[in-house]
Amino acid sequence: MTELKLPCYADVAAAAERIEGYANRTPVMTSRTVNEEFGAEVFFKCENLQRMGAFKFRGAMNALRQFTPEQRAAGVVTFSSGNHAQAIALAAKLLGIPATIVMPHDAPAAKVAATKGYGGNVIVYNRYTEDREQIGRDLAAKHGLTLIPPYDHPHVIAGQGTAAKELIEETGPLDALFVCLGGGGLLSGSALATRHLSPDCLIYGVEPQAGNDGQQSFRSGSIVHIDTPKTIADGAQTQHLGNYTFPLIQKHVTDILTVTDEELIASMKFIAERMKLVVEPTGCLGFAAARAKKRELAGKKVGIIISGGNVDISRFSEFLAM
Amino acid sequence: MTELKLPCYADVAAAAERIEGYANRTPVMTSRTVNEEFGAEVFFKCENLQRMGAFKFRGAMNALRQFTPEQRAAGVVTFSSGNHAQAIALAAKLLGIPATIVMPHDAPAAKVAATKGYGGNVIVYNRYTEDREQIGRDLAAKHGLTLIPPYDHPHVIAGQGTAAKELIEETGPLDALFVCLGGGGLLSGSALATRHLSPDCLIYGVEPQAGNDGQQSFRSGSIVHIDTPKTIADGAQTQHLGNYTFPLIQKHVTDILTVTDEELIASMKFIAERMKLVVEPTGCLGFAAARAKKRELAGKKVGIIISGGNVDISRFSEFLAM
Repeated sequence: MTELKLPCYADVAAAAERIEGYANRTPVMTSRTVNEEFGAEVFFKCENLQRMGAFKFRGAMNALRQFTPEQRAAGVVTFSSGNHAQAIALAAKLLGIPATIVMPHDAPAAKVAATKGYGGNVIVYNRYTEDREQIGRDLAAKHGLTLIPPYDHPHVIAGQGTAAKELIEETGPLDALFVCLGGGGLLSGSALATRHLSPDCLIYGVEPQAGNDGQQSFRSGSIVHIDTPKTIADGAQTQHLGNYTFPLIQKHVTDILTVTDEELIASMKFIAERMKLVVEPTGCLGFAAARAKKRELAGKKVGIIISGGNVDISRFSEFLAM
Repeated sequence: MTELKLPCYADVAAAAERIEGYANRTPVMTSRTVNEEFGAEVFFKCENLQRMGAFKFRGAMNALRQFTPEQRAAGVVTFSSGNHAQAIALAAKLLGIPATIVMPHDAPAAKVAATKGYGGNVIVYNRYTEDREQIGRDLAAKHGLTLIPPYDHPHVIAGQGTAAKELIEETGPLDALFVCLGGGGLLSGSALATRHLSPDCLIYGVEPQAGNDGQQSFRSGSIVHIDTPKTIADGAQTQHLGNYTFPLIQKHVTDILTVTDEELIASMKFIAERMKLVVEPTGCLGFAAARAKKRELAGKKVGIIISGGNVDISRFSEFLAM
């Protein structure tokens, strides 16, 4: 593990140039209601308004733009619970690269449909009994495909870091940043950008309480594996951090926090009602944790990354009715 | 009627200066899905992201900023089914003016709560049996308040026109613009801005089918009064156009279209799913009409004003589940 070459801020900066013109520069929104509730200045980076509805497009495009002609011709393969799948499918379509996507059997229907809609070749596996990473590696070996995993890849991490880079370029240095945490691609990339652009900023990763492998890993000092957690935050149902993401998180992140599904639902309703935005459960992790910590944030300048908005509308309707 | 001094584009331009720093310059959003579906360039002016959640803040602030010291001291009164109420309450609060708001008994709870939350003194009337305009006029006469009605006032109209002004300044000239129509404040103001900034643009007002008084008026040449229509578009339940709004609409608008509540719900779901935005039923009028007309719009540059996002979250949840 110690021999891996970890990405650095220069990689994030290079990714920003590489994805320009492909990815949206998403808006940074504020809410006077939130600012009053917190007694703070709170800035939301709205990656739910990113192409295909989540930050994942950044990392996928950054990775695929670096393919050699041979890699482009053979194609890309990935495994993903959803947003990374769509991201790879869309980025591949835009670049004319064939894409094979290994998706869990219980992925949200909207995400499967969108992935197929972008032209991705979808292969389904059972999230609870099969090993998606092995399936991906086997397909790669058999067909000469390049595997771009959802988070544990330096190009993916660097690409995801461009969201925090844009945020801080727009807001100036922050006192605290809240980032959702699944496998750690967004968190480690955000940490690279933030440590460079706003060195004193507290950086919090936020997990669903039922899937706190990241918190356990962070506190124990080595990667903890857990069973697939049951949580509405389907984008954070990862079982472990990665060999790239973990050391970056250990080095740069202040702490890992957790929130309950109930807190996610309350935050989702608040954001819909007050900010008029549709945010998927995973996308509410950062705001939910910041709300729980709001007394400590009084008088501060706070960034929150809303990671995505891809939620089945029927499920979203149910959450709002809870 | 012919002796009324109608507002003109210069009034819209002056309103824009007057509300600057108070109102948000709301984002103009695009959706690749919509552009592909239409084969057109479609621009959404997102007034659901305006302060208090709707364009109404523009007109209210433009009107209140022109109060004399005596008017400010005595206070403002208005009648409104919701968004104008909140707009007056918030603008009055920001300017330190007492506000009395006459609201229907069946206004959405979120709108009543928000109006009270902004410090407005709310007086309730029965939408189906009482005359809100008379109640407003009586209160004004009795307490020396200045009545700012929800749409039929030159300062309100000029203020509402600033949304279309911002839109066209950002997009350049448009081929067609779709604007929701209740009492006509937004439509007539938008028409003033559009005829000046994009003279050849087709301008469509859009009403709920159940409340097509504007269409009847436009086609017959005089203001038609109807009973309070039953439609989910509660912001367009007006019974007639106004003495200021009607001649402006007659002069500048291309046609008045109608859509069904079912079309509104389909558009609301589409916008939530694809654009990740919460839009109230009335706010979907423009998009719903544009969708129905999309073949005619191929190859064109189209503007759509999303008027607001103030919908009870429980109702919104029900709409999404339909």
